[in-house]
Amino acid sequence: MITTIAVDAMGGDFGPPVTVPAVLHCLQHNLKLQIILVGRTPELHACWPARHELELQRVEFLHAEQVVEMNEAPAQAMRAKKDSSMRVAINLVQESRADACVSAGNTGALMATARYVLKTLPGIDRPAIISSLPAIKGHTHLLDLGANIDSSPEQLLQFAIMGSVLVKATEDIAAPTVGLLNIGVEDIKGSESIKAAARLIRNTSLNYQGFVEGDGIYHGVVDVVVCDGFIGNVALKTSEGLAQMIRRSLHQEFKRNWYTRLAGLVAMPALTAMKRRIDHRRHNGATLIGLRKTVIKSHGGADTLAFQYAINKAVAEVDRQVTDLIQNEIQQVLQETG
Amino acid sequence: MITTIAVDAMGGDFGPPVTVPAVLHCLQHNLKLQIILVGRTPELHACWPARHELELQRVEFLHAEQVVEMNEAPAQAMRAKKDSSMRVAINLVQESRADACVSAGNTGALMATARYVLKTLPGIDRPAIISSLPAIKGHTHLLDLGANIDSSPEQLLQFAIMGSVLVKATEDIAAPTVGLLNIGVEDIKGSESIKAAARLIRNTSLNYQGFVEGDGIYHGVVDVVVCDGFIGNVALKTSEGLAQMIRRSLHQEFKRNWYTRLAGLVAMPALTAMKRRIDHRRHNGATLIGLRKTVIKSHGGADTLAFQYAINKAVAEVDRQVTDLIQNEIQQVLQETG
Repeated sequence: MITTIAVDAMGGDFGPPVTVPAVLHCLQHNLKLQIILVGRTPELHACWPARHELELQRVEFLHAEQVVEMNEAPAQAMRAKKDSSMRVAINLVQESRADACVSAGNTGALMATARYVLKTLPGIDRPAIISSLPAIKGHTHLLDLGANIDSSPEQLLQFAIMGSVLVKATEDIAAPTVGLLNIGVEDIKGSESIKAAARLIRNTSLNYQGFVEGDGIYHGVVDVVVCDGFIGNVALKTSEGLAQMIRRSLHQEFKRNWYTRLAGLVAMPALTAMKRRIDHRRHNGATLIGLRKTVIKSHGGADTLAFQYAINKAVAEVDRQVTDLIQNEIQQVLQETG
Repeated sequence: MITTIAVDAMGGDFGPPVTVPAVLHCLQHNLKLQIILVGRTPELHACWPARHELELQRVEFLHAEQVVEMNEAPAQAMRAKKDSSMRVAINLVQESRADACVSAGNTGALMATARYVLKTLPGIDRPAIISSLPAIKGHTHLLDLGANIDSSPEQLLQFAIMGSVLVKATEDIAAPTVGLLNIGVEDIKGSESIKAAARLIRNTSLNYQGFVEGDGIYHGVVDVVVCDGFIGNVALKTSEGLAQMIRRSLHQEFKRNWYTRLAGLVAMPALTAMKRRIDHRRHNGATLIGLRKTVIKSHGGADTLAFQYAINKAVAEVDRQVTDLIQNEIQQVLQETG
């Protein structure tokens, strides 16, 4: 079966020089993939490498004149940019001309537009953002990463269901373990809202393991860590900052003198292997979960490799019918909990 | 001038085998320091190394029979353990027999007991926990790290004042920069509570720089990052988890085969230098800020080196009269803001 992905080619810090080669690479490695590349077509054609005529049969260049800026207010983008590459890509999904869309653009605008055009699934109050993160044991999934602040216990329950279904479908784990992010693992810890969410989740058939602390994310103690979007966003960005500090610090120490420079060369294979193992690019692609169709948000600073991962994530979620599965599970839990 | 520190020798994951040698080391390096070591005196004496008779002149062993367990509920510890090493150490500060106290014990119990015995400063609703963290540019301070959840805008203002005074006094920075942790740097981002806090802080004479995102902590964009305790605790614990994952991953890659083992040896000096530079042990010692006296919480897993840093932090804050300075600044800001 052919999967068609609409790609917002203009989004992200780099635009077509990153998105177009990533699309080509994905087409080369997946013969059942079709892409609709949306953006300023002259720029897109200019980034398409010569001598790759064959793949052109599976790619459509669709012109969209406008570009949503990375710092543009979502409301402004929705009102004034109805012909943006982002909006047109989402429209293609709504019109069923594409199965899913991928964008590295402005997160707020992508979420607002996708929610407005595609709508949320029945039983879901608001969509969330979920991504996988590397962990000591395999990897884990964290949601919400910033779409919602001050989430209610009912919303946290919805996040738990959606995260569990996504991991079950895409990771082939029969009953993914679920934890609620808190400031202690004992039942008495945390806000009233967290405790109420714990009671709700415990009453479902989800494989709920209780509270998880921040370090549990990278220890991989559960498959799905659930939290409010403010908390999840701080956890993610703090991690990015710490990783950058460690990388910078390592770099500086190896540049210190001729001995350390040599040592850096000798140590390179191990350092590269480690970097590869915990490489955030291989976890690129956050799902805007809870919508009626699949929308994947790539990191704005994604390079070609990272953007490929985001496209492949969209393909996997379409193949596994994640949105349908979430809809079924939500209905079932709503019946269970009355 | 002599500074006297009461040390809860039983607290932490290791107790006297860590706390007693740390005390000896601090006494050796600071001839104006006196210590009251509180705990089960036979155990304390057993950990005091022979041939260090001289330092014994500046240390008092004070017996306390009970020990607060690391997972004990704070209310239970306060009610049932009035002769715990933690409680006795705090009492010494209240009775002015010691200038400050240091404990690696149960954080919740330490905070509850210190607040009950020592009281908060006038104008402070609740104490907070503040610690320094390494950053790309120098280091930064983050508060609250978990003493308060659902902090009000007024509390966040108090945190900002306390953090600013602490950094001004102990780091010799004339006007420390202050930021509010948020999920974006634009004014429209975040909860109503965060926005209200921003308005309050902006109206003071603090050197307020606006919102800071999670990665800003480790970039060192401001001297003091202010947030609710739930958020701060998640940021700190998430960082611990990520650092552990990176350390583990590096270790495994260097153990992979004979080449990488050799490379690991060659790279050791640079790796050690980096580790030293961002070593969390050298940032050990969080201040329970907002109390009428100085109380320092050491990490529970602190080793001897880390515990020394916590004791030295207590000494520095007593020398710089941090609690008096906070009291003055709070009164001044309360007058400014009417």
